[in-house]
Amino acid sequence: MALTLAQLAEQLNVELMGDGDVSVSTVASLQRAGPGALSFLANPKYRRYLKKTRASAVVLSDRDAQDSPVPVLVSDNPYACYARAARLLYPLDKPRSGIHPSAIVDETAQIDRTAWIGANTVVAEEAKIGPSVQIGPGCIVGAKVEIGEGSQLVARVTVLAEAHIGRRAILHPGVVIGSDGFGLAGVEGRWEKVPQLGSVRIGDDVEIGANTTVDRGTVEDTVIEAGAKIDNQVQIAHNVFIGAQTAIAACVGISGSARIGRYCTLAGGVGVVGHLEIADHVHITGMSMVTRSISEPGTYSAGTPLMENRQWRRNAVRMKQLDRLTRRISSLEKSK
Amino acid sequence: MALTLAQLAEQLNVELMGDGDVSVSTVASLQRAGPGALSFLANPKYRRYLKKTRASAVVLSDRDAQDSPVPVLVSDNPYACYARAARLLYPLDKPRSGIHPSAIVDETAQIDRTAWIGANTVVAEEAKIGPSVQIGPGCIVGAKVEIGEGSQLVARVTVLAEAHIGRRAILHPGVVIGSDGFGLAGVEGRWEKVPQLGSVRIGDDVEIGANTTVDRGTVEDTVIEAGAKIDNQVQIAHNVFIGAQTAIAACVGISGSARIGRYCTLAGGVGVVGHLEIADHVHITGMSMVTRSISEPGTYSAGTPLMENRQWRRNAVRMKQLDRLTRRISSLEKSK
Amino acid sequence: MALTLAQLAEQLNVELMGDGDVSVSTVASLQRAGPGALSFLANPKYRRYLKKTRASAVVLSDRDAQDSPVPVLVSDNPYACYARAARLLYPLDKPRSGIHPSAIVDETAQIDRTAWIGANTVVAEEAKIGPSVQIGPGCIVGAKVEIGEGSQLVARVTVLAEAHIGRRAILHPGVVIGSDGFGLAGVEGRWEKVPQLGSVRIGDDVEIGANTTVDRGTVEDTVIEAGAKIDNQVQIAHNVFIGAQTAIAACVGISGSARIGRYCTLAGGVGVVGHLEIADHVHITGMSMVTRSISEPGTYSAGTPLMENRQWRRNAVRMKQLDRLTRRISSLEKSK
Repeated sequence: MALTLAQLAEQLNVELMGDGDVSVSTVASLQRAGPGALSFLANPKYRRYLKKTRASAVVLSDRDAQDSPVPVLVSDNPYACYARAARLLYPLDKPRSGIHPSAIVDETAQIDRTAWIGANTVVAEEAKIGPSVQIGPGCIVGAKVEIGEGSQLVARVTVLAEAHIGRRAILHPGVVIGSDGFGLAGVEGRWEKVPQLGSVRIGDDVEIGANTTVDRGTVEDTVIEAGAKIDNQVQIAHNVFIGAQTAIAACVGISGSARIGRYCTLAGGVGVVGHLEIADHVHITGMSMVTRSISEPGTYSAGTPLMENRQWRRNAVRMKQLDRLTRRISSLEKSK
Repeated sequence: MALTLAQLAEQLNVELMGDGDVSVSTVASLQRAGPGALSFLANPKYRRYLKKTRASAVVLSDRDAQDSPVPVLVSDNPYACYARAARLLYPLDKPRSGIHPSAIVDETAQIDRTAWIGANTVVAEEAKIGPSVQIGPGCIVGAKVEIGEGSQLVARVTVLAEAHIGRRAILHPGVVIGSDGFGLAGVEGRWEKVPQLGSVRIGDDVEIGANTTVDRGTVEDTVIEAGAKIDNQVQIAHNVFIGAQTAIAACVGISGSARIGRYCTLAGGVGVVGHLEIADHVHITGMSMVTRSISEPGTYSAGTPLMENRQWRRNAVRMKQLDRLTRRISSLEKSK
Repeated sequence: MALTLAQLAEQLNVELMGDGDVSVSTVASLQRAGPGALSFLANPKYRRYLKKTRASAVVLSDRDAQDSPVPVLVSDNPYACYARAARLLYPLDKPRSGIHPSAIVDETAQIDRTAWIGANTVVAEEAKIGPSVQIGPGCIVGAKVEIGEGSQLVARVTVLAEAHIGRRAILHPGVVIGSDGFGLAGVEGRWEKVPQLGSVRIGDDVEIGANTTVDRGTVEDTVIEAGAKIDNQVQIAHNVFIGAQTAIAACVGISGSARIGRYCTLAGGVGVVGHLEIADHVHITGMSMVTRSISEPGTYSAGTPLMENRQWRRNAVRMKQLDRLTRRISSLEKSK
């Protein structure tokens, strides 16, 4: 869809610097944009590309606006403003409705007539699929699952029995909701399975990335509150609680019964030990392991910096001697 | 199902302290339980909830029993006792049998008449599906695969050609068994694929979590022995051997040809380098990398502790200087 | 298939030491091989098995050849030579063609008549499937996806709209190509979704392991160049670029907009922070986090070595005191 900058500025409710009759119909990065493209600058790493951009217009913050060679949509949140502009230029497809003839829907399932059930999707007994829900091809929806209005299972999503998914949630391909947690009781050198009797409750506006897994609770439910955003290949174990608006990047693993607060961010590859609590507004940097509860908001880290391999080898040897080194220092101090 | 405490104590063969006529019909955690619920205390972190629990009964060890405000099922393994009680209160569904009309079963496959093949599942030529096997919807069972009595493929499980799965195994959604391993031979700057000609053998009573992958062997089979338990999103590379009763938590990656002993535990996020051996009864703590063979039973760890980010930054700089710091200490010692 | 050593030597164009009339029909490891088996020695760890091998022949480098008790195919790249020999002994199945009656193929999709579409696979509108492409059961191929000649989607692969896959690519089960990236703009404490409008371009001869995910680009495409090899459970975020012939082992996570050079290797569990560049010929050892751009070829590492747990606990305390320890050393030096 093509829109003039004047139209965009009005619909986005932002200031326009430059010719409002210029029209854009596509989006592109600063360095690759050509005529007709709207671009944006949100990460300062890319500021160097602004001066030479061939975009027709750019979304910028006030402080970058004067450096632009082309018209500017000025926003104090350029990334969000760009996102909304992109949605105007590329409107979502109209929701589909109906049930594909190859879908296998139990006769006791309740499918809203505005919902869509894609090819080869299986919907089990007593599932409730709300208005405008979009279930793509190859999904499996278990017995008594409830999916709220406007939610989307993109394709090949598995939601097992009794899980409850709120409104406007998005579940990407390969997601598994409600698998059994890792509940084992050791008995004389063998493992006995602990029945996993809880389910999963997912709030409104939650997004869950490809191949992420969310286990059902052992006795009560695993809970993901409204607005939480979860990236690809994240593992959320049984009984975990994730607070509203918390964002969890890819490859994070959260162990059983951990409780993550609201407005937190967990960067990629973070691991969280079980049975601990993380307060609201806590941020964990990439690949750190959280081994204790965190009661104070702030940013927390673990890990060693990347080194040239030869340097790392020399230093790694010393990591094993650290306690001894400390005692050597103490000894020197005493003999001073 | 409702049972009296007297009935439970008898069936579980444990001592009852309190009124045997009290009946329970559900399970709950100590802090959330209400009347009619059976609870348990296995993790000492939750002992503080015992005194105020509103459960109708609790499974406890002898030492905790006197602190209970409600009747107690006394067990020296409360978690296992709870697990069995929960199974009595929530009996497993009766196994289904038959083949869903939408399933696509090759005419040369042998399906026991007590087995169940779910909707949209595909079973290829010469597969052998044993008695009472439960294969849920959306699964793919490759040619010549064998699945032993009572095993369960929950839903959307992929088992590729010639894999052999024992009895009473449980495979959760998204599991892939028998994918090609990462076998590459470098030839003049390009990679050539090494044919992956082995398969996968999985023993009795093995459980494999959602989205876990187990590669086929390069020449011989990848092996998971009986009773091993594997959590979600674990990666088991080609030619790996995992000993009986070993438990592997989520997000672990085991590289090719590694050999893990029996009765081991690998905590979440552990990585194991290829071509090494880990003895029986070895325990690796979370997110550690195992870079060498381990011949002695015991517990092993790697990694740096979590720190407030500012503190971590200051310390991380020093990790790169450790060898130099050590030499500075040596120099001080010499000049003493 | 059985072949004499003379036949193998000729077809592989390598020197034979020993009786060319000996025939082999299978492959095996040195320690497990029996009569009729061809074995190989590529990893020096297994050299000790050479002298007692019962294989009928072994592929060896020149320096190992004299130690062999059995005939030798001599190659300066024994692993690659073995791989080719194995392919001769176990030829690939002839490609199938045709569309399984249960597949659901949109009438506007173009399927080459030599391509194969397996059971329950769904192919959406305007997809283009090239000659000899093998799409196994349970796959989902989105609208306008293009798949080049001879590529293989083994089973249950999901390729979302508009992705472009080159020739002779292999995608293993559970792979998801083209899922939305983790694009979020924070607005007053909530997250707004950033439309993900790019797609994914995968070059010729790329192999992608089970349950690996590759997100579509935000504005331009995520790119994997020709000959790159990617193992299981790898996460490749939006806008990432992976250079030709780069090999990425299992459980690696690459954050958005990172650019990985050509001829690189990333070992298992590596994490790469977003918006950085890694030069050609860079090698990262297992479970390291790459937090900065790398402009020089070479090998890079991070992490702490594995220790017995008691030793690790003592040393880990000191890691939190490293900066203070350094200042204690400086103070000692000053007072010397």
